[in-house]
Amino acid sequence: MKKEFVVIGLGRFGGSIVRELVRLGADVLAIDTNQEKVDEFAKIATQAVIADTTDEDVIKSLGIRNFEHVIIAIGENIQNSILTTLILKDLGVKQITVKAQNDYHARVLEKIGADFVVHPERDMGIRIANNMMSSNVLDYLELSDEHSIMEIKANDQIAGYSLIDLDIRAKYGINIVGIKRGEAIIISPAADEKILLGDILLVIGADVDINRFVKKMMS
Amino acid sequence: MKKEFVVIGLGRFGGSIVRELVRLGADVLAIDTNQEKVDEFAKIATQAVIADTTDEDVIKSLGIRNFEHVIIAIGENIQNSILTTLILKDLGVKQITVKAQNDYHARVLEKIGADFVVHPERDMGIRIANNMMSSNVLDYLELSDEHSIMEIKANDQIAGYSLIDLDIRAKYGINIVGIKRGEAIIISPAADEKILLGDILLVIGADVDINRFVKKMMS
Ligand SMILES: Nc1ncnc2c1ncn2[C@@H]1O[C@H](COP(=O)(O)OP(=O)(O)OP(=O)(O)O)[C@@H](O)[C@H]1O
Ligand SMILES: Nc1ncnc2c1ncn2[C@@H]1O[C@H](COP(=O)(O)OP(=O)(O)OP(=O)(O)O)[C@@H](O)[C@H]1O
Ligand SMILES: [Ca+2]
Ligand SMILES: [Ca+2]
Ligand SMILES: [Ca+2]
Ligand SMILES: [Ca+2]
Repeated sequence: MKKEFVVIGLGRFGGSIVRELVRLGADVLAIDTNQEKVDEFAKIATQAVIADTTDEDVIKSLGIRNFEHVIIAIGENIQNSILTTLILKDLGVKQITVKAQNDYHARVLEKIGADFVVHPERDMGIRIANNMMSSNVLDYLELSDEHSIMEIKANDQIAGYSLIDLDIRAKYGINIVGIKRGEAIIISPAADEKILLGDILLVIGADVDINRFVKKMMS
Repeated sequence: MKKEFVVIGLGRFGGSIVRELVRLGADVLAIDTNQEKVDEFAKIATQAVIADTTDEDVIKSLGIRNFEHVIIAIGENIQNSILTTLILKDLGVKQITVKAQNDYHARVLEKIGADFVVHPERDMGIRIANNMMSSNVLDYLELSDEHSIMEIKANDQIAGYSLIDLDIRAKYGINIVGIKRGEAIIISPAADEKILLGDILLVIGADVDINRFVKKMMS
């Protein structure tokens, strides 16, 4: 059985979700009040319809309650976002993900029963700020408030050394779990693997420990 | 020396960058044409000024060319975004990051010399679509087009087994580089470590191999 989703609001965020879900093989019903948006997504989504989702009768007639997961990506119009969430929740939709514009909007959405509240612009801003601050940390996956996996670009201070030479695990309590070398990925590199200039190290550990290592490497 | 940034456009994306850069200890000059936005960020940024960055004289008088990195987070008004990029580039600003609204906008920005072009809504849409498609894959870090580190929630099909029991490396060519267990993170778990229900496995490998493992685990 295919996974079935409804995406309401076809701005940049909602539109991107539709494209990616379809690419991953899901069925997607795309909805917007705007004719142009709906025309654009008619070729992409499984189905695209013009509808105002703040109208309960409209939502009922579209059978939205039968879908596994509804994403509400209405932006500026916070009132429409909240009202749509309320109606879908009332109809018993199981999983509702809603885009929030600000903290106040997020609090209201959580109160009325949105299952996931997302902040795309805020979260991407945080990501990009972190990337800009440390030019050697290229990307990261946050594992907890205090732990991450980070992609760290090897500079000439560590190039030429093997993992055992650097002894990073003992010195910093962190671990190199992979190396990106051009197009290749070396998974769980051996202790005698030599680091080359431009290698991207995949490092797991506590943020403070990884940052200590990065600072040391840059000095 | 502190890192110094200019952020132009204090919407959700630009505003989030300002907050996070300041939190990370950077100096930030925040700029918007909108009085209310500037008032809001006067308490947060190192300095906040009302200015229209499509006016070259204004940009010169603010001394923007002396900053290390300028982020242009102007949204809807694509013309303002392009013109601001052009002026900053002309003045010789070293690193310019610009938010793009669509592919056409991105192409123009790259042509006129923007160093980094970012698509926050699009990229976060892709991330969230991927998270929604596989309920056991919680988050991921894309290492290349074909490799990732994924956070996979352990279900009752693998709970109770040790890593050596499962023999994942031999069977799937992937590796468990860490386990999130509640608040704790086990880095590079030993072969005899037993997986518990609800553990989050940090798995590195080719996407196809990780997906094979996830599908197998779900069956
Ligand atoms: N009641 C509604 N029913 C259906 N669609 C709606 C409704 N209200 C707004 N929309 C649509 O939601 C879409 C997204 O809204 P908007 O463009 O304001 O958000 P945004 O946060 O600026 O988007 P993004 O940053 O993702 O581009 C718009 O295309 C709009 O037409
Ligand atoms: N020429 C300019 N100089 C300075 N600031 C500008 C200029 N043009 C637009 N801005 C500001 O840029 C900010 C962001 O623009 P806008 O809100 O259109 O983008 P957006 O993509 O909807 O933002 P987000 O999705 O991040 O909330 C606005 O606060 C706007 O006042
Ligand atoms: Ca907008
Ligand atoms: Ca936006
Ligand atoms: Ca963190
Ligand atoms: Ca991929």
